[in-house]
Amino acid sequence: MSLNHDIKDGTYLDVLQAPSLLQRLRYTREMSVVLSTPLSDEDQMVQSMNDASPTKWHLAHTTWFFETFILSKFLENYICFDDTFGYCFNSYYDAVGPRHPRPIRGLLTRPSMQEVRSYRAYVDEALELLFQQYDGQGGELPTKASRLIELGIHHEQQHQELLLTDILHLFSLNPLNPVYKKEISINRNKHKKVLDYDWQDCDGGVFEIGHTGDGFCYDHEGPVHKCYIHPFAMANRLVTNKEWIDFINDGGYQNVALWLSDGWNKVQSEQWNAPLYWQQDEDGQWMRMSLHGRHSVVLAEPVSHISYYEAVAFANWAGKRLPTEQEWERAAQHQDISVNTFDLQHLSPQPAQLVSGLTQLFGHTWQWTQSAYAPYPGYAPEQGAVGEYNGKFMCNQYVLRGGSCLTQNGHSRITYRNFFYPEQRWQCTGLRLATNA
Amino acid sequence: MSLNHDIKDGTYLDVLQAPSLLQRLRYTREMSVVLSTPLSDEDQMVQSMNDASPTKWHLAHTTWFFETFILSKFLENYICFDDTFGYCFNSYYDAVGPRHPRPIRGLLTRPSMQEVRSYRAYVDEALELLFQQYDGQGGELPTKASRLIELGIHHEQQHQELLLTDILHLFSLNPLNPVYKKEISINRNKHKKVLDYDWQDCDGGVFEIGHTGDGFCYDHEGPVHKCYIHPFAMANRLVTNKEWIDFINDGGYQNVALWLSDGWNKVQSEQWNAPLYWQQDEDGQWMRMSLHGRHSVVLAEPVSHISYYEAVAFANWAGKRLPTEQEWERAAQHQDISVNTFDLQHLSPQPAQLVSGLTQLFGHTWQWTQSAYAPYPGYAPEQGAVGEYNGKFMCNQYVLRGGSCLTQNGHSRITYRNFFYPEQRWQCTGLRLATNA
Amino acid sequence: MSLNHDIKDGTYLDVLQAPSLLQRLRYTREMSVVLSTPLSDEDQMVQSMNDASPTKWHLAHTTWFFETFILSKFLENYICFDDTFGYCFNSYYDAVGPRHPRPIRGLLTRPSMQEVRSYRAYVDEALELLFQQYDGQGGELPTKASRLIELGIHHEQQHQELLLTDILHLFSLNPLNPVYKKEISINRNKHKKVLDYDWQDCDGGVFEIGHTGDGFCYDHEGPVHKCYIHPFAMANRLVTNKEWIDFINDGGYQNVALWLSDGWNKVQSEQWNAPLYWQQDEDGQWMRMSLHGRHSVVLAEPVSHISYYEAVAFANWAGKRLPTEQEWERAAQHQDISVNTFDLQHLSPQPAQLVSGLTQLFGHTWQWTQSAYAPYPGYAPEQGAVGEYNGKFMCNQYVLRGGSCLTQNGHSRITYRNFFYPEQRWQCTGLRLATNA
Amino acid sequence: MSLNHDIKDGTYLDVLQAPSLLQRLRYTREMSVVLSTPLSDEDQMVQSMNDASPTKWHLAHTTWFFETFILSKFLENYICFDDTFGYCFNSYYDAVGPRHPRPIRGLLTRPSMQEVRSYRAYVDEALELLFQQYDGQGGELPTKASRLIELGIHHEQQHQELLLTDILHLFSLNPLNPVYKKEISINRNKHKKVLDYDWQDCDGGVFEIGHTGDGFCYDHEGPVHKCYIHPFAMANRLVTNKEWIDFINDGGYQNVALWLSDGWNKVQSEQWNAPLYWQQDEDGQWMRMSLHGRHSVVLAEPVSHISYYEAVAFANWAGKRLPTEQEWERAAQHQDISVNTFDLQHLSPQPAQLVSGLTQLFGHTWQWTQSAYAPYPGYAPEQGAVGEYNGKFMCNQYVLRGGSCLTQNGHSRITYRNFFYPEQRWQCTGLRLATNA
Repeated sequence: MSLNHDIKDGTYLDVLQAPSLLQRLRYTREMSVVLSTPLSDEDQMVQSMNDASPTKWHLAHTTWFFETFILSKFLENYICFDDTFGYCFNSYYDAVGPRHPRPIRGLLTRPSMQEVRSYRAYVDEALELLFQQYDGQGGELPTKASRLIELGIHHEQQHQELLLTDILHLFSLNPLNPVYKKEISINRNKHKKVLDYDWQDCDGGVFEIGHTGDGFCYDHEGPVHKCYIHPFAMANRLVTNKEWIDFINDGGYQNVALWLSDGWNKVQSEQWNAPLYWQQDEDGQWMRMSLHGRHSVVLAEPVSHISYYEAVAFANWAGKRLPTEQEWERAAQHQDISVNTFDLQHLSPQPAQLVSGLTQLFGHTWQWTQSAYAPYPGYAPEQGAVGEYNGKFMCNQYVLRGGSCLTQNGHSRITYRNFFYPEQRWQCTGLRLATNA
Repeated sequence: MSLNHDIKDGTYLDVLQAPSLLQRLRYTREMSVVLSTPLSDEDQMVQSMNDASPTKWHLAHTTWFFETFILSKFLENYICFDDTFGYCFNSYYDAVGPRHPRPIRGLLTRPSMQEVRSYRAYVDEALELLFQQYDGQGGELPTKASRLIELGIHHEQQHQELLLTDILHLFSLNPLNPVYKKEISINRNKHKKVLDYDWQDCDGGVFEIGHTGDGFCYDHEGPVHKCYIHPFAMANRLVTNKEWIDFINDGGYQNVALWLSDGWNKVQSEQWNAPLYWQQDEDGQWMRMSLHGRHSVVLAEPVSHISYYEAVAFANWAGKRLPTEQEWERAAQHQDISVNTFDLQHLSPQPAQLVSGLTQLFGHTWQWTQSAYAPYPGYAPEQGAVGEYNGKFMCNQYVLRGGSCLTQNGHSRITYRNFFYPEQRWQCTGLRLATNA
Repeated sequence: MSLNHDIKDGTYLDVLQAPSLLQRLRYTREMSVVLSTPLSDEDQMVQSMNDASPTKWHLAHTTWFFETFILSKFLENYICFDDTFGYCFNSYYDAVGPRHPRPIRGLLTRPSMQEVRSYRAYVDEALELLFQQYDGQGGELPTKASRLIELGIHHEQQHQELLLTDILHLFSLNPLNPVYKKEISINRNKHKKVLDYDWQDCDGGVFEIGHTGDGFCYDHEGPVHKCYIHPFAMANRLVTNKEWIDFINDGGYQNVALWLSDGWNKVQSEQWNAPLYWQQDEDGQWMRMSLHGRHSVVLAEPVSHISYYEAVAFANWAGKRLPTEQEWERAAQHQDISVNTFDLQHLSPQPAQLVSGLTQLFGHTWQWTQSAYAPYPGYAPEQGAVGEYNGKFMCNQYVLRGGSCLTQNGHSRITYRNFFYPEQRWQCTGLRLATNA
Repeated sequence: MSLNHDIKDGTYLDVLQAPSLLQRLRYTREMSVVLSTPLSDEDQMVQSMNDASPTKWHLAHTTWFFETFILSKFLENYICFDDTFGYCFNSYYDAVGPRHPRPIRGLLTRPSMQEVRSYRAYVDEALELLFQQYDGQGGELPTKASRLIELGIHHEQQHQELLLTDILHLFSLNPLNPVYKKEISINRNKHKKVLDYDWQDCDGGVFEIGHTGDGFCYDHEGPVHKCYIHPFAMANRLVTNKEWIDFINDGGYQNVALWLSDGWNKVQSEQWNAPLYWQQDEDGQWMRMSLHGRHSVVLAEPVSHISYYEAVAFANWAGKRLPTEQEWERAAQHQDISVNTFDLQHLSPQPAQLVSGLTQLFGHTWQWTQSAYAPYPGYAPEQGAVGEYNGKFMCNQYVLRGGSCLTQNGHSRITYRNFFYPEQRWQCTGLRLATNA
C-alpha cells in the first residue's frame, strides 16, 4: 500500500483509528514529500525572507532531527549520512553545535535536492531498521525513543505547515502569481451565507488549564495547573473578510486610537492598509494572493494573514477584545468542536458551517489570543537539546490557539499553544472575538 | 516657607503626614526645578538617545500636561502661554494633536531654557489661581480636576525619575565622567556585610490583585480582581553586584543555554558582557558610571541597569526564576516593607539592612518580573486623551515592581506597575529571585 | 582698537591692505566669537546630524588646532589648557591620537561653554606670547610656525562657514523657525531684474592649473601642472531660483532620464522634490528656511543648498553640463571677478549685478563642478598630522569652486578646491552651467 | 560543426580570424549555455547578494536584450516569447518600462529554468531568421541592427563574466566549498618564480586618449580626445599574493595612515583583514575560495578580489601609486601586450611570464586606476534606451582597465573602461603600481 497514493487521492490518515507509531511516522515522512511534489527544484531552493526557509531545508532539517535525536542515540552502529549536514540543517539547537545562519539558508544550493532526497531515504530506512531492531528482540522501542519519535512526527508536521506558508510568501513576490497546485478551484464560496454571531457565555471560577492524559503534547502545554478565569463570552465563529473590509472602509488603518503603540509604528513604517497578500484592483476590488494564486477576496471566509497588532485594532474597533489563551481553552473544553480537516484540495479557510455552538476552532486559521507566550506555573523545559524546542522563545511572542487549514490532521489539540511575534503575518492567522461577561 | 529650601536641605515632604493636594502639587513642581539645579543649560538641552529626553523637555512637558489637561479645561479664561508649545512638548497623546518627533527633542534649542522657566512660573501661578478660584467660591475643586491634578503630580514624579536616568545616560557618554552632584561620597558601603538569603514561603490559592481604596492609582492597577497563585518562595533581598560578578566570572554572558533566544541575539549584537555602565579596568576591576561619576562597583549593593534578558539569564544560572507580578504583590502584602526614601544625598541603591523578612521592596532598584505587561481582567482605559497614558503600551513590555532610589517618596505602591521593553537598561533596574514552593 | 567692534559694525578687515599675520590671526579668532554671539549656549551645544558639529565644538576645535600644531611645538614651556581636550576636540587627525566619535560631538555638555571660552582666551594669550617670544629676540617666527599659523587661520575660516551652515541645519528642524540674527531684512530682492545669460567662450589648449606664487594655499591646490583643456563656453552667472522652479514645474524631480543612477536612488529614498530647506505653502508658493528664518523664495537669487546629483540633473534638463574644475579655473583666470563680500548683514546669495563678463564667481554659492576630487599630478600630502588635512578625502567627493556668501573675505581663491559628497546639501551650494564650444 | 563542442574542447573562437557577426553571435550565445552547464538548476536560481544576479537571470536578461532592442525593432512580425518577461528581465533601462527589483531577482523561481532555456532557443532562432530575412533579400542587415547585435554580443560577454563572479560569491558562502568545474587542478603554480619588477618609463606630453577606428567600442570610450599626461613609470606586472601577504604582515590593515578616510571606515565596519575570499587556517596559512574551491593562496599569482580602497592603501604602503586610466592607456599603447586567454581550464589569474616589457595587461585581473569614472570631453550617451548603458553610472565609481581571467576573448581593448564602486570586491580585481617619473 502506497501512502503516497492515498495522500494524493485525498484519503488522509484517519487519526481516530489510532494507527501505530510506525504507521504515523511513515505517513508523516511521506506527507512532506507529497507537499513538495507540486514544486520545482528551483521553488524548493529559495528563501524569500529571514522568517521563511526553503522547502529543501524543511525536508532536510526534519530528517536531521530524526538522525540527531533518535538514530544517533538509539540505532546501533548508525553512521551519519553526511557529517556536514549537521552544520547545514540544525535550526536553533545550540547544545548540538554551530550552524549555518538562518538568513542564508537559501544559499545552500549544495547539498543538492537530489542529495536531500537520498538523505531522506537513508534516514527513513534507518528508522525502519530501528523498529525492526527492537521487534527482532521481541521487545518494544524504549519509551524515550518512542517519545522522541513522537516529537519528531509533530516537529515534521509543524514544518509541513511552515513549508506551505513559506512557499506562499515566495510566490506572493513573484510577478507571475504562481499557483501551488493547479487542480483546485477557489471561488466556490463567493455567495455563501455567513453564520450569525452568537456569544457563548462562560462562567468564572478556578479551572484547570494545560494538558492531561497520556497523549503526546509539547512540554509547554503543561504542567496542568489551576487558573482563575473571570466570566466572559466567546464568539461562535471567526471574523470574516467581509467584516475586515468594513474595518478598512471605516478607516481602521488610519485611526491611531484603535492601535497599540508598537502596532501603530508598524502600520506607519510598513504602510499596512490591509492583511498581508491583499491588494486593491484599479476598480477598488480587494484581491488576495493565496496558494490558489491571485483571486478576489471571498467575503464569507475567515480573514487570514493578519498580525496581532491588526487583530487587537480590529477588536477595539468592534468594541470587543481578544480572548486570553485560558479563556479559549476553557470555552473549547465542553463544546462540540469541528474536526481538523487538512486536505490538499482546500488549503484555504472556509466559511463557517451554519451550526449552533462554537465552531471553526480548528482547520481554518490560527487565532490570536491576548496572552503573551510565557511558561505555565511549574514549567521546566525538557532536559537536553530538545529542551530548546519551546522554552527559550518565551518572550515577545503571543499565543495563538486552534489550528489552520494548513495544519496536519491530528496535529493540534485544545491545549495546543502556537506562538509568533506580534508583527508576523505570513502564517495563516486570524481572530475570534471575546468580551467580558 | 520655601519648599526649595527644604528640599535642598534634604528634608523631604513627609508623605505620612498627609499633606494637602496643593501642598503636594507645589512640592512636586518645585522638586523638578531642584533636580535640574545641578545641571547647566547645556546639560539640560541634550538628548543622548531616542529613549531619553532632555531635562528641558521634561520640565516643559510636565508643565504642558497641567496646562493641557487641567488649566485649559478648568481655569476660566485661561490663555495658553505659547501656542507653539503644544506641538513641541506633547509626548505621545495622539488625541491632542500632532507633535515634535521624539528622536529630535534634543534639537529644540528654542524655546530657550529661560522661556521654559517662564512657562513653568506662568503655569504654576495659574494652578494657584485655579485653587483660589474654587476656594473663593467657598467650594472645592471639581473631583475631575483634582483627580487630574493628582495624575499630573504622579506624572511629573515619573518624569523626575526619567530626568535623572536620562542625565546619567548622557553623562555616561561623556569622556570627562561628570558627577551629577558633587557633594556626595560613594564608597562608604565598600566592606558592608551582605544580608543572608532567606526565602519567604507563600501559600497558593485565590487572591485579590490590584488596587483598592480611595487613594490614587493609575488606571492599569485595576480593576481589583481574583487570581490563582501557586505556592512559591520569594527571596528576602535583591541580587547584589557581588553575585552578578560571580555570574560574569562563571561565563554567564557566554553561555547560550541560560538565555532567552531574543536575549542571546541582543548579547551578541550589542556585545553585552556586564550591566550597562560597567567597564573593566586594566587590572580587571569592575568600575561603573553612576550619578556619582565613575567609581568602582560596590559589591554589597544591589545590581542595577540590567535588562529583562539579563535578569532571566541570571535567574536561570542561579537555578531560580523571576517572580510573576502577582507573586510579588502577594508577597509584599503582609510584610513589613521598608519605606521609600528618595534622598538627593543617595541616588544609588544601598545594601540591604540586616533585618528579617522581605526587604528592599522600594527605594533601591525596580524589580523585573516575568510578567508581560498586559491589561488586568476587566481593564478599560480612561476616556479621553489621558486614556493613552498606559493602555496602548500593553505589548512587548515587561512589568517591574517596587521602586528605585530615584523614585520620589510616596510615588510607588504595592500595586504599582512599571513597564519597560526587555532590552532596556538605562532605568535603575535590578532583580529579586523567586522559586517554586 | 577692538576688532570685535569693527566686525560688529560691519567694517570687515580689508584684505587688500595686506594686514600682518598677527592682525589677521587676531581678526580671525575674534570673528569666531562674533559669529557665535547671536546664539544661546543651548544653540551652541547641539548637533543636528552626523555631518554637522555644535558651535561650541567648532570654537574649541579651532583652538585645539592652534594649541596642538603650533603652541605645543613652538612656544617654550607651553602647558596644555586641559589634557582631556585633545580627546574631545580632535576632528580626524589619526596621527595625533584617539578622539571622541564625530556623531556624538553634541553630547559634550562638559566641558562647558564657559570653559571653552576660557580655553579660547588662554590659547589666544599664548599665541600673543609666541609672537612676542620671537619679537623680543629681534627676530621673526620660524617659517614653519608662520606657515602653520596661516594654516590655522584658514582652518578657522573654514569652520566659520561650517558654523553658519550647521546652525542653519539645526534651525531648519526647529518648529519655531528661528532667525540667526534678527536685524536683517530679506525680501529686498523680490522684483530684481535677472542678468541675461551670456556664454564666455574659452579656447582649448594646454594650460597651467594650480596655485603659483608665495601666497597661502592648501596642499591640494598644487603642484601647478599642465593640463589640456578643450574649447568650451561658461555661463556668466549662477542658476537662479526662478530657473530652478521651472525645472521643478517641468517635472525635473520625476524624470529619471535626467538623473545619474545614484542620484535617482537618492531622489526616491529621500523623496527629494526641491532643494534642501524648501517647502511649498498650501497655496503652492515655495518658501525656504535660511539664516533669516522662513521666507518666500526670492526668484532672482542664485539657487542654493542643492546636491551634486541635482546640479547634474538640472544641467541635463537645460541641455548643458557642469564645468570641470579646470575649466572653471581657466575661465576665471582672465576675468574681472567680483570681490568676495562676506557681510553679517547679508548671509544670503544675491542676484547677479547687471554687468558684462563672468560674474558671481565668489560670494554667493559654491559651484559644483563635474570633477571628482582627486590629487593633482605630482601631489603629495604634507608631512605629519596636517598631511591628513586633505589627501585622505580624495575619494567619492566632488570639487566645488568659488565661494559662498558665508565664506570669509580673503579665504577663497581662483585655485581654491572645496569638496563634498554628491548627496550633501547643507552647504551653500549652487551651480553655474557650461557647454562644449 | 557544433560550437558547443569546440568550446567544451577548450578550442575557443580565434578572435584574430575575424569571424563574421553571425558566427560571433552564435558563439557568444552558446558560450553562456556552456558556462552554465556545470551548475545545477538550484545553483542557477539563487542570488547571494544585491550586487549579484542568479545565473538564470543572466541567461534570460541577455536574451531579453536581443529581443527588446533588436528583434522587436528589426524582425518583421516578431512576437515576444512572453509578455511578462520584459518586467522580469529588464535590468536598469528605465526608458523601456518598470522592472522587477534587483535585490529580489533570486525569488523568480518562475519562469522556470526550462522556460528560460526555451526562451533562449526561441530568440536564437529568431536571430537566425533576422539574418536570413536580409540575406534572402540579397542585402545586409541595416547598420543600426548590426551595431545593436554587436552591442548585444558584448553585453552578453559582460554578463558571462558576471555569471562566473556571481557564482563564486554564492559558493563562497556555502559551507561545502563547492567547486565550479571539477576537472581543474589549481596548485601547479605553487613554486613558480616571480618576474622581477621593471619600471616602464613614459614621457609626458599631449596624447590622444579614447577609441579610434571602425571596430566596436562602448560609447564611453570616446570621443577620442587630447590629454596632457605627465611623465611617469609603470610596473611591468601585477602585484602578487606574496606581496599582499607582506602588506598584511606589516600591519597594512591596521595602519590608518595608509588609507583613504572612506576606506578606513569600511575596513573597520566590515572588519576587513585580507582580500575577499581569503581566510587564515589554524596554522596561519592563507586559504582562499575560488572557482576551484578552497585552496591555499598561490604566492606567485596576482592578488585578486580587492577593493579600490585596498589597492590605494597597498600602493601607499609600497611608496607608489595607482596609475590614472590615461597613463594606463598610454603605457599599453606601444607595448607588446599579452593576448587575452579566456580558458575554461584556467579561470584563475596566472603568474607573470618571465618576459621583458609590460605584461599581464589582459587575462588575469582587472586593474584599479586612480581615475573616477567620468565622461570624456565631448561625451554624449547614445540616443534611446541603450543610452542608459553607461552614462548614468558616471558617479562614485572608479575605472578599471585591462581584463581578467574571466573576461571573454576579444571582449576587452586598450581603450576599454570597466567601472565599479570603490568598496566592491567580488569582481576579479587587482592592481598594477605606477609612480611619478
